[in-house]
Amino acid sequence: MKIKVMDKVLAANDAWAEENRKFLAQRSITMLNLIGSPGSGKTSLLEKTIDLLGKKLRIGVIEGDIATSRDAERIGKKGIPVFQINTGNACHLDAHLVNAALKELCKSSRLNLIFVENIGNLVCPAEFDIGEHAKIAILSVTEGDDKVEKYPLLFSEAKALIITKLSLLSHTNFKLEKAEKDFRKVNREAPILRIDNISGEGFSGWIAFLNNM
Amino acid sequence: MKIKVMDKVLAANDAWAEENRKFLAQRSITMLNLIGSPGSGKTSLLEKTIDLLGKKLRIGVIEGDIATSRDAERIGKKGIPVFQINTGNACHLDAHLVNAALKELCKSSRLNLIFVENIGNLVCPAEFDIGEHAKIAILSVTEGDDKVEKYPLLFSEAKALIITKLSLLSHTNFKLEKAEKDFRKVNREAPILRIDNISGEGFSGWIAFLNNM
Repeated sequence: MKIKVMDKVLAANDAWAEENRKFLAQRSITMLNLIGSPGSGKTSLLEKTIDLLGKKLRIGVIEGDIATSRDAERIGKKGIPVFQINTGNACHLDAHLVNAALKELCKSSRLNLIFVENIGNLVCPAEFDIGEHAKIAILSVTEGDDKVEKYPLLFSEAKALIITKLSLLSHTNFKLEKAEKDFRKVNREAPILRIDNISGEGFSGWIAFLNNM
Repeated sequence: MKIKVMDKVLAANDAWAEENRKFLAQRSITMLNLIGSPGSGKTSLLEKTIDLLGKKLRIGVIEGDIATSRDAERIGKKGIPVFQINTGNACHLDAHLVNAALKELCKSSRLNLIFVENIGNLVCPAEFDIGEHAKIAILSVTEGDDKVEKYPLLFSEAKALIITKLSLLSHTNFKLEKAEKDFRKVNREAPILRIDNISGEGFSGWIAFLNNM
């Protein structure tokens, strides 16, 4: 009974995801779905990315949070279009919520790259297609190097793995080699990018990745 | 339709939670539900706690993870009873899963304190009563000081807030005062304990809290 209902929920979601794909294709917009733990550095990554790429590309952001508009305020300071979704208690964004946000965001702006910052959570956001071109997995070194093994779905589906907070590496027992080896077991192709949001280390690879999307 | 189904799921869960409460009461066992982000330091907190308190109290641990038995192996090294639940893709532990684990754990051991390490997730685990005596919220300074505001349900329900990774504080822009002020807005009474799992700083307060449960 529970499974049947979940199937229905996912089928409804997939129909909206398809709508979103059409909406984006008609406007030649690329949409990326950023997924990581709370505090893994998703918003900081976006801030730095906008600094580096915001003049070349017309970027918009959809922020997903349970509560508050803090992240949208941070991104709004960069002078780009941003739409905040508050889910109340839902642990992920679904395609219907994103559809409403997309329409609002594109009403007055012609964009070519949209980042969706999903709810901070390694589990549920990975299960819902929102019509994105790629899921991007974010993992900070302060979370520990066992997280790829422990949350396999996200890492197997990601089109890139971004390892953040590199400057804190020496203060942790995180082994880059272990995390990257675990990642390769579930994901053969996606590039692995090691970055630091504060110093900007490693951003050239990330920017190149975005330019090639 | 979705809401009705969710109500049914929660009602079934609450009945199992009640079963768990009876089971624990009959055996004079206290059960604590540890909830925090992936990598917030829940397992390390348990390791240190067992070192400090494992001779005085008969401690058991229920580990909840999507995949792997890594955490149970870490805890097992301490020589105490541990039971690993793998949820497959479920983002939280429910009372029924915990009931099965409780029965296994108590089959051959007489315990007086059981820790449940929930799935690393600030959202869903807070919504499900598992029959615990108290939810304990774990927040690491590397996650950022905005997390209390962004995930209010967990922090409002917690009977203690443990702030971990204190030794990394100077490498972050985490403001203890801000996080603690936000916490007091949603939770007037629960103690706030600042700790470091590696140095052991602040553990005396945590141990005193456990002794008073």
